[in-house]
Amino acid sequence: MKALILAENDFEDLELFYPYYRLKEEGIEVKIASSRESIVGKRGYEIKPHIKYEEVNPSEFDALIIPGGKSPERVRLNKSAIEITKKFFIENKPIAVICHGAQVLISANLVKGRKIACWYGIKDDVIAAGATFVDGIAIDSNIVSARFPNDLPEWTKSFLHLLKN
Amino acid sequence: MKALILAENDFEDLELFYPYYRLKEEGIEVKIASSRESIVGKRGYEIKPHIKYEEVNPSEFDALIIPGGKSPERVRLNKSAIEITKKFFIENKPIAVICHGAQVLISANLVKGRKIACWYGIKDDVIAAGATFVDGIAIDSNIVSARFPNDLPEWTKSFLHLLKN
Repeated sequence: MKALILAENDFEDLELFYPYYRLKEEGIEVKIASSRESIVGKRGYEIKPHIKYEEVNPSEFDALIIPGGKSPERVRLNKSAIEITKKFFIENKPIAVICHGAQVLISANLVKGRKIACWYGIKDDVIAAGATFVDGIAIDSNIVSARFPNDLPEWTKSFLHLLKN
Repeated sequence: MKALILAENDFEDLELFYPYYRLKEEGIEVKIASSRESIVGKRGYEIKPHIKYEEVNPSEFDALIIPGGKSPERVRLNKSAIEITKKFFIENKPIAVICHGAQVLISANLVKGRKIACWYGIKDDVIAAGATFVDGIAIDSNIVSARFPNDLPEWTKSFLHLLKN
């Protein structure tokens, strides 16, 4: 199995590294896609992405993860990143977003009519885009969403359950 | 099941939060013991410990975790923390240490004759205390040790395996 993470600078460090290490622990190969050669989280953790958005072939991957922080506001500006996100949704592959990650789903027109969890600061954006806000972990179709780092255990558990079933 | 983490200020953030969230994901209750009301990691993540070392009853817990960073140099100064560590070892309960976490094992006289992994900067201390240094993940008796954050997936997997078997 193979999973893809979309990330830019100022990602929320735990929200990138927790699923990154967690999926590796599960024996799943994880690649980070970005527009940059190197990205640094809000708390200073640095990691080198493996691939550019333009080089991603979504059909090679089984799941998509979008961590929060300031990163999603940068990810959503890249057309290829939005196309990748749409592709995963259409192909019914699990998509996990946390915190500001839902901003990428708004730009990909994927929240309308769905239950979505996100950081409180973008709750009104998610509602304005047609979603029902969930103050917890939301599972709707192939999208698993959550609010903040303390949701990581339940979010990851739900995401792995979706991925394996 | 119930696990205990020993931590002070300047803990390595991922090395505390990864196992903390990971064990919660597994349905294991996790308590953090410290000398302080609040602790802050090297990267700025803050968490409120649940219990003082002096209040810990080791027989209530099934496993012990000692994250790295500058925290272990502070943990090892507390006599109760050292007694707790010895007690877990004697009762054959899994002990997971990572990075500088091995410093607490040195102070508890638990490394002599064992295979121990640790951060390279304290490799000579671990050897001087009678251990064989392992450049990877070491499993010896009920102690699982590792070097740095990138070891988290394999370290946690080995630790959970020991805890469940």
